[in-house]
Amino acid sequence: MVKVCVIGSTGVIGKNVTFKLAKADTVSEVVLFSRPESLDKAKGQSYDMYDALAAEDIDCLLTPSCNYEDLEGSDIVLITAGAPRQKGMNRRDLAFINAKIVSQYAKQIAKYAPDAVILVTTNPVDVMTTIAYDASGFSRRKVIGVGNHLDSLRLKNYFAKCLNINSSEIHTRVIGEHGDNMVPLLSSTTIGGIPLKYFIKEVELDIKDIIKTLKNAGNTIISKKGATEYGPAYAISNLIKTIITNTHKILTVSLYLDGEIANVKGVSLGVPAVLYKNGIAMIVPIHMNDYETKKFLKAAEDIQELTEEVRKSLKEDN
Amino acid sequence: MVKVCVIGSTGVIGKNVTFKLAKADTVSEVVLFSRPESLDKAKGQSYDMYDALAAEDIDCLLTPSCNYEDLEGSDIVLITAGAPRQKGMNRRDLAFINAKIVSQYAKQIAKYAPDAVILVTTNPVDVMTTIAYDASGFSRRKVIGVGNHLDSLRLKNYFAKCLNINSSEIHTRVIGEHGDNMVPLLSSTTIGGIPLKYFIKEVELDIKDIIKTLKNAGNTIISKKGATEYGPAYAISNLIKTIITNTHKILTVSLYLDGEIANVKGVSLGVPAVLYKNGIAMIVPIHMNDYETKKFLKAAEDIQELTEEVRKSLKEDN
Amino acid sequence: MVKVCVIGSTGVIGKNVTFKLAKADTVSEVVLFSRPESLDKAKGQSYDMYDALAAEDIDCLLTPSCNYEDLEGSDIVLITAGAPRQKGMNRRDLAFINAKIVSQYAKQIAKYAPDAVILVTTNPVDVMTTIAYDASGFSRRKVIGVGNHLDSLRLKNYFAKCLNINSSEIHTRVIGEHGDNMVPLLSSTTIGGIPLKYFIKEVELDIKDIIKTLKNAGNTIISKKGATEYGPAYAISNLIKTIITNTHKILTVSLYLDGEIANVKGVSLGVPAVLYKNGIAMIVPIHMNDYETKKFLKAAEDIQELTEEVRKSLKEDN
Amino acid sequence: MVKVCVIGSTGVIGKNVTFKLAKADTVSEVVLFSRPESLDKAKGQSYDMYDALAAEDIDCLLTPSCNYEDLEGSDIVLITAGAPRQKGMNRRDLAFINAKIVSQYAKQIAKYAPDAVILVTTNPVDVMTTIAYDASGFSRRKVIGVGNHLDSLRLKNYFAKCLNINSSEIHTRVIGEHGDNMVPLLSSTTIGGIPLKYFIKEVELDIKDIIKTLKNAGNTIISKKGATEYGPAYAISNLIKTIITNTHKILTVSLYLDGEIANVKGVSLGVPAVLYKNGIAMIVPIHMNDYETKKFLKAAEDIQELTEEVRKSLKEDN
Repeated sequence: MVKVCVIGSTGVIGKNVTFKLAKADTVSEVVLFSRPESLDKAKGQSYDMYDALAAEDIDCLLTPSCNYEDLEGSDIVLITAGAPRQKGMNRRDLAFINAKIVSQYAKQIAKYAPDAVILVTTNPVDVMTTIAYDASGFSRRKVIGVGNHLDSLRLKNYFAKCLNINSSEIHTRVIGEHGDNMVPLLSSTTIGGIPLKYFIKEVELDIKDIIKTLKNAGNTIISKKGATEYGPAYAISNLIKTIITNTHKILTVSLYLDGEIANVKGVSLGVPAVLYKNGIAMIVPIHMNDYETKKFLKAAEDIQELTEEVRKSLKEDN
Repeated sequence: MVKVCVIGSTGVIGKNVTFKLAKADTVSEVVLFSRPESLDKAKGQSYDMYDALAAEDIDCLLTPSCNYEDLEGSDIVLITAGAPRQKGMNRRDLAFINAKIVSQYAKQIAKYAPDAVILVTTNPVDVMTTIAYDASGFSRRKVIGVGNHLDSLRLKNYFAKCLNINSSEIHTRVIGEHGDNMVPLLSSTTIGGIPLKYFIKEVELDIKDIIKTLKNAGNTIISKKGATEYGPAYAISNLIKTIITNTHKILTVSLYLDGEIANVKGVSLGVPAVLYKNGIAMIVPIHMNDYETKKFLKAAEDIQELTEEVRKSLKEDN
Repeated sequence: MVKVCVIGSTGVIGKNVTFKLAKADTVSEVVLFSRPESLDKAKGQSYDMYDALAAEDIDCLLTPSCNYEDLEGSDIVLITAGAPRQKGMNRRDLAFINAKIVSQYAKQIAKYAPDAVILVTTNPVDVMTTIAYDASGFSRRKVIGVGNHLDSLRLKNYFAKCLNINSSEIHTRVIGEHGDNMVPLLSSTTIGGIPLKYFIKEVELDIKDIIKTLKNAGNTIISKKGATEYGPAYAISNLIKTIITNTHKILTVSLYLDGEIANVKGVSLGVPAVLYKNGIAMIVPIHMNDYETKKFLKAAEDIQELTEEVRKSLKEDN
Repeated sequence: MVKVCVIGSTGVIGKNVTFKLAKADTVSEVVLFSRPESLDKAKGQSYDMYDALAAEDIDCLLTPSCNYEDLEGSDIVLITAGAPRQKGMNRRDLAFINAKIVSQYAKQIAKYAPDAVILVTTNPVDVMTTIAYDASGFSRRKVIGVGNHLDSLRLKNYFAKCLNINSSEIHTRVIGEHGDNMVPLLSSTTIGGIPLKYFIKEVELDIKDIIKTLKNAGNTIISKKGATEYGPAYAISNLIKTIITNTHKILTVSLYLDGEIANVKGVSLGVPAVLYKNGIAMIVPIHMNDYETKKFLKAAEDIQELTEEVRKSLKEDN
């Protein structure tokens, strides 16, 4: 039985992840971590969830807290905290603001839950993964960014709906950056193990249009309902469940690379990896076509540049 | 496989019920019904949910709609729509406003989904159950109000936590009105089939304090997190699941009485009933002590008076 | 909610499929069909299962029967009945004996459950699929043989264990004959969507050894525990669940071909197909390498020859 | 994640418990313990189960073993091993034979898995519970006999079918001896928390007939299908799941009493207890009517007498 701590539990995504975890047989405690000023809201969340759990006769301890000592014993800590992107704020501005938040939490995790696996969803997530890796001092196999997994689910859904085939049959991935330089890995997309090209002729696939659709997916939802909610929460829960149950599934996560894919080093990017109870068990070998490689390297360059700037500014602050 | 329509799908509770149903093996379609001005929001909900369903490889058709024809073929229609209680508005005012809304929907359900079971959660729910019964012309066994089931879950939780025993072992109910005149049925409360009094001495049970706690439960959550969300959604889903799977569980629901309990007639109140695929299979015989009977009759009197006023005003409108 | 009829419910596989189905939310009735002399055994099965279902509070009607009228209203009928292969009996002998049994049941299904999907597991299953197709007069999209799906699960397991990756990531298939001429479709085997060859060098894959392992898998289990039991039962249940829940998964099933794969016509063989509530929604396009094509054509030739002999002998009997 | 060891894994019940546990999210390893001469059978079981688990993409380590060292790290050890009752053998003879088997295993458990909870199902189970308690030297809260829980499920089923109400609503128990002196606790039987007497008039309940039905339940199944299988396996799995998930449910189990119920001491009998991760959390207070008390004391007397004889004979053997 596992203890998970959700930092940022009162946000839309944090609360939905918390509730999903509370319902899992394998989880015995979720810490609803929040800033002191939101502790009361976290308490309200826990009361509301207890009512719902009673409807299904589920027992799970929910611990609203703003006290770092409650991190102790966590098997997994999820960082969802961070400033949202305000109007007129660009990704670079956001990175500087959120890096301080993520860095501070990662240090406390290292202190109070030194054996935990850290998951990061704060944006820009590929940069924040490196920041959490730096600040925690953990092995890079235990610091995981969740970004492209959601993009991948959306691409999977795109093909599932377009072919009218169950999404469990669609193996496809979006790698690289969780953002403008995302790379839909069409060359390794299969339907029930059978290459996509036998279902859809390559000329009929407009990759630019697919990328546009994927990139807009979140914005469309935000414009219509105000925020993305269930999608990110279930992508994250999926990852956490794979780690908890030690099931060795292959998910696309951001992690600090050391030359495994396209010789990229010293930057975190989304790549397929086998997950298990201690984080990353193995980075999966992929072969990209020229277009994909080019886009992946572009993502690496962009993210690395921003990451180095952010690292530098954090150092100066200290 | 079942089709369910959620009227008021863009509200906090409506969306959570929708998402819960979408994940059930037994449900093949959920109609996210909304007013035309909220249709776009309902669409956003469906996109967000599709992302989440892909994470678990679940197929369920989500149909955002403001078109009554999409009610056709529904096995169950849930009415969650209604005005929220504004500051300075009393229950009576609310009843008059919501009666028009519920009445109008119930007529459309009768027209487009004449075989459906109707669930009502709009407040004051005991009054609205009668209004939906009147307007639909359905058998009273197919018009069900959801109110005391949530109160009952909260009371169950109260004893589960206090005794540290799984909530599945606690059989307890709150009957009567979903509101001030609720009746916690302590005389028929058992723990694993064993009367509560063998666990807690009767003198130690402060019934007034319990009622106060239950009545404040919702308000406490609202004051802390802004709204009740998961609790009501799971109470409702629980009921719907029992109906869909035809499992003959005993849940506490509001239904139009005809003398079955304490000779109360011509008013809807919360009582224990066996639910099955066509609604109410049987009203469960209960024996109340004097205190409980007195409170139940008081609830009957109050709700009946308000119901008759509302019925009269609706007639005048026509 | 669905009704399923299991013909041969007192056999090892039949009873395990029955029990698995009884536990599914989506199934409201299972008919435990048996020969009159086994009816008492079928009753004993139902009593034993009811005890177990009570442990999980599951309601499902179990109907032991030897009366064809109880087939009425079945959405799916599974034929597991048949003589087992005796010592000294070859596949040809078995085919002649079982064809009579399968043919007789298929006629009764056509009479009493004309809208059902028929699943056949009686061996040699590829021949029996054609016999059931002939005798029922059903569309070939509603008569499905279960054989290679189990072989495919075993191959999936083989790679999952060898690579230490969750089996949900392994997409691989065994097609052709459920027997000596089975074709492991290594050319379309992927791990998380990524071709197998990037995980294991082709030279390291000894296909003959893999085929040998797969073919022996059943025999090994039989030699050790007396019969295969859970494996076949879960392969079958998997198929049934996909049909019931209309989930459009791609499973490898035997079906009467009309030129869709390698121009093979007029014989039932295992091929990947999309399953839905009415049986086969689509035969999936596959591209085989030369070795695979050759083996597939060999299987077609062999099975067609035996099928024609059996068809002829059944005609002579009438 | 939990490790469970099933001693007697090749028996009908042992294998079904093993398979049920293998499918649980919370179990990462099941040891299929057997005598050396059955090890091959245990291996066959594991191969067959792996095929089935692949159908549901479940990972669980199955370890066939006849080596006591493989008990190490087990959270729960289930003893299902024992001689079956042969024709002409009475319960007393059986007790002497099985006591040696159970005693020997309990000693090995104490040596290799000193922190485990021991479950015993070997018959006569109330005697064997004491023997395992003696031989292990464990706290009596960690040595649990499974007998009346199955009787209780059958009684639950009896009322569920007779009233057409879901079994989750029926709280009833059979306590005392798992055998002739069983005590159906009708005085504490409730339906949805409401006393049975409001559903069925007491005069209509023929308690002797109910006892007869319950006692014959197993025999009826055995006479029809050769053995009880799913019922006992699911009763046991239910108990194990409650322990693993630490859910504090109230189940009826045999445990060594120290005066908690009707002042009975120094003998193991079936009583309701709250189960949690370390075994028995609490013995539940029950109030029996005169008839029930008399039968319970008779069971105590009988079982105590046999237990003392068996204890003595074991001592003499050493």
